Amino acid sequence: MGFAELKNDRYLKALLKQETDTTPVWIMRQAGRYLPEYRETRQQAGSFLDLCKNPELACEVTLQPLRRFDLDAAILFSDILTIPDAMDLGLYFSTGEGPKFERPLRTHADIDKLFVPDPADSLRYVTDAVTLIRQELDGLVPLIGFSGSPWTLATYMIEGGGSKDYHNCKGMLYGDPKALHRILEVTTQAVVVYLNAQIEAGAQSVMVFDTWGGVLSPEAYAEFSLRYMQQIVQQVSREHDGETIPITLFTKGGGQWLEKIAATGCNAVGLDWTISIDEARQRIGNEVALQGNLDPNVLYASPDIIRQHAKTLIDKFGPHPGHVFNLGHGIHQTVNPDHLKVLVDAVHEFGREIRR
Amino acid sequence: MGFAELKNDRYLKALLKQETDTTPVWIMRQAGRYLPEYRETRQQAGSFLDLCKNPELACEVTLQPLRRFDLDAAILFSDILTIPDAMDLGLYFSTGEGPKFERPLRTHADIDKLFVPDPADSLRYVTDAVTLIRQELDGLVPLIGFSGSPWTLATYMIEGGGSKDYHNCKGMLYGDPKALHRILEVTTQAVVVYLNAQIEAGAQSVMVFDTWGGVLSPEAYAEFSLRYMQQIVQQVSREHDGETIPITLFTKGGGQWLEKIAATGCNAVGLDWTISIDEARQRIGNEVALQGNLDPNVLYASPDIIRQHAKTLIDKFGPHPGHVFNLGHGIHQTVNPDHLKVLVDAVHEFGREIRR
Repeated sequence: MGFAELKNDRYLKALLKQETDTTPVWIMRQAGRYLPEYRETRQQAGSFLDLCKNPELACEVTLQPLRRFDLDAAILFSDILTIPDAMDLGLYFSTGEGPKFERPLRTHADIDKLFVPDPADSLRYVTDAVTLIRQELDGLVPLIGFSGSPWTLATYMIEGGGSKDYHNCKGMLYGDPKALHRILEVTTQAVVVYLNAQIEAGAQSVMVFDTWGGVLSPEAYAEFSLRYMQQIVQQVSREHDGETIPITLFTKGGGQWLEKIAATGCNAVGLDWTISIDEARQRIGNEVALQGNLDPNVLYASPDIIRQHAKTLIDKFGPHPGHVFNLGHGIHQTVNPDHLKVLVDAVHEFGREIRR
Repeated sequence: MGFAELKNDRYLKALLKQETDTTPVWIMRQAGRYLPEYRETRQQAGSFLDLCKNPELACEVTLQPLRRFDLDAAILFSDILTIPDAMDLGLYFSTGEGPKFERPLRTHADIDKLFVPDPADSLRYVTDAVTLIRQELDGLVPLIGFSGSPWTLATYMIEGGGSKDYHNCKGMLYGDPKALHRILEVTTQAVVVYLNAQIEAGAQSVMVFDTWGGVLSPEAYAEFSLRYMQQIVQQVSREHDGETIPITLFTKGGGQWLEKIAATGCNAVGLDWTISIDEARQRIGNEVALQGNLDPNVLYASPDIIRQHAKTLIDKFGPHPGHVFNLGHGIHQTVNPDHLKVLVDAVHEFGREIRR
């Protein structure tokens, strides 16, 4: 491909549990509405989907946070629902209500029509964005590709949008589990193909967001979410162009199931803020790297308090390799960007300190 | 008071970890919108708040599910936000948006105005309903009183309604924790006085609903939610009229903190469906009774599947005393009431079977 050599490999090294000079940090939704320059580009693009589907503008917003903050990774700007959109379910966004699908999966006939989208075709805008971002990064930091988990995608595909109680998808889970497995099988193949296309296009690490795995019972989580994420871990390219491609799994609300997540063979496990990172390290820190896990709401406090929370978290993890600092969920849109700068700099400062 | 003698004490016995002939069962929100007779009474009352504030109609809807199902307890029909309403924050319900407060807590001056409402005054409609229900039950089953937890009440009081990210209350938690503690201290005293008034009026057991404790970090949960629930456990009457009054604590999303919840000295711990009840029993079953924990969405499946899930859950808990069967959260409004009948009968059938 001829991409530039990587200058900052802290993030990739930490995922592989190798020593680094300080703790690497990136922030979920770091390219987002809390940044005025993002809001401006978004306005320019038109809708949110127009922004996602325009590789130049997606590249621009991906790079924006890196111009402000000393972040150790870039993450592809995209939506988690690109796959079901490419499956022809008709993704749209209604103001204030989040993502919706025109044609949710309600019958066996709907499910029979599902197919694995060809990333070279209907998802070309994503791989084009990946390659463009990787070029524009010019080796500054590594680029993370991502996908929603099959279960998380299925919740939207079945409900036709976000949900409070997951009435339809859990109704299917308990009442017609075979139908749900068929949806998850096709979706898993689509995720594998999609992530591999991102890796081919230039992604140096991939992450699977299982945003809604935590709404399941332990048995249902194992059968309907984790099982398919494990297939993804097994089938996604773990090496490309002579480089290892680490994979991170993140189940929001998955603190009770860390051992099972780590056992999939992934490189890193994302943590929300409902678990202490020292406890997580004791439980799975020998097997995998950990990513997380500050409560995003800490960023509403004063710089002093933000620094104090960064230090506490880094001290809790201790001077071991294998920690990627992040929030436990995406950054909120009303956060003051200057507060994020305080956090990112504090992570590097205290990360250096603890290694002395 | 001269209330009738209790005919069915399975629920109270199970909370005290005493042997019963079968597993007792009641259902969170058993008096609710899934019942056509509830919807009719609600229509008759006017608004939801009118229904809560009318002791005769509150009594009527409390008793409705007991006429249909072989339930082992009644729970006072009321709203969890009666306390902040009595604190003069101006509770109202806007269609489709849930509860709101006209005067949320936003400044120190707002907090300074908080006071412990006198239950004999502005909450009289609640204690009147309790006494009336207890009389009308005529000893059929015990009556459960309840309150929201201080933290859960505070989230509504500070946000002015429900919230997705708890921006304001967590902003206060991290940025001005003393102010939050002041809110929680007054609210805790209000909860204690309120629950004791319910016990005086005839409640035979009380439950604290910590619906939003699970959105906190472990440290914040201990400091801002559990600490105040522990004060409630210590200060609420645990005996009345010569009878023990068991207390149940339920933190939705609290599966990671069960040991800490059990250590408060409560009699029982409520479980949502994200933890296996056998694991919970191993962890805290020697100290407390357990209440729960079927995923409410199981009720969308067929009668056969509902029975199978009831059996599995009862088998997992095993033939030990100390299990109160319930859902892991309130019953959904679109559930078919006949399905709940299948569940309740199955619990008693399989509860008897496992004790043979």
